[in-house]
Amino acid sequence: MATGTRERIVDAAAELLRDRGYAGTGLKAISTRAPAPFGSLYHFFPGGKEELAAVALRHSAAGYARQVDAVLSEAGDDVVAAVRVGFDRAADLLVETDYADACPIATVALEVASTNEPLREVAGSIFEGWLRGLEARFAAGGLDADAARAFATLFLAALEGGFLLSRSARDPAPMRSLGRTVADAIEAALAPAG
Amino acid sequence: MATGTRERIVDAAAELLRDRGYAGTGLKAISTRAPAPFGSLYHFFPGGKEELAAVALRHSAAGYARQVDAVLSEAGDDVVAAVRVGFDRAADLLVETDYADACPIATVALEVASTNEPLREVAGSIFEGWLRGLEARFAAGGLDADAARAFATLFLAALEGGFLLSRSARDPAPMRSLGRTVADAIEAALAPAG
Repeated sequence: MATGTRERIVDAAAELLRDRGYAGTGLKAISTRAPAPFGSLYHFFPGGKEELAAVALRHSAAGYARQVDAVLSEAGDDVVAAVRVGFDRAADLLVETDYADACPIATVALEVASTNEPLREVAGSIFEGWLRGLEARFAAGGLDADAARAFATLFLAALEGGFLLSRSARDPAPMRSLGRTVADAIEAALAPAG
Repeated sequence: MATGTRERIVDAAAELLRDRGYAGTGLKAISTRAPAPFGSLYHFFPGGKEELAAVALRHSAAGYARQVDAVLSEAGDDVVAAVRVGFDRAADLLVETDYADACPIATVALEVASTNEPLREVAGSIFEGWLRGLEARFAAGGLDADAARAFATLFLAALEGGFLLSRSARDPAPMRSLGRTVADAIEAALAPAG
């Protein structure tokens, strides 16, 4: 049972952090949502909210990376198709979830960048892990090392920026447009080598 | 003096919202930072924190748009050069401000997208205004209407994503890389017409 409680606490914290940010997420709200006795939060996370947030962010990030990876893998080694599919799926997800669901890290990352160094480092290492995964995929798809890193950065920045623009407008159009533009740019970069 | 107090309140709110987000910004902190008597916040903003936040976001957004516009205008009608300069200046600003200074809207926009509909609408209309300004600039630089809108979206999403990645990593490299990649993509789009 102890494992189940800890997992429920981490899941609840991850959801609240994604939806409300770090300052907007209280231990009491996590305890209610889990549900788990308030005292069990300190039992499992003696470092309190900061320790729990770090664990929850890493947990969400790993799940999110698996999801994105599964979507991109549908297109095999065709990175142009993978990018199109990835952004279209993100746009569909925004519509299906009424624009509530998005990157589990970004809101907290912006919020803590200048206010909480341990959590800033957690966010930085999560993004770097994602960039390396994308870089490897783009390199396998035929981009040279510099281009693979550059387009991994563009893919991730545009996806995160797309969540921001599409959620703020309640409109999937920015996300879909970004998918086409990023895919076209990668296609153009592959062309001379192809 | 009344005008001065209101302006100080709006400036303080704008800075706190940018740095700490909406949930992390209390009226008391705004009152202390302005400085302004606590009661004067409700005198000027009877709608409380939500009304003040809306005014502060629009105020920051207008100032930010003027700054970005001034930077991009340095390159005249050469949109490729403008994009390079814009991202490089953003990267420089991140380093100079110790990664504290960035988009005055994004943190709050992500936070309120699913939790505060009036502020979500404010953020949405701010981003749409920025997109229209960029679109007009890119059209004047030679892109056709569809491409101007698509690259305005890519520019803004990449800039916002760049703030997220560079601030999280405390490294200007992602922002500089994005500037080169976005500029190259615009150059390629202009080439057939030129």
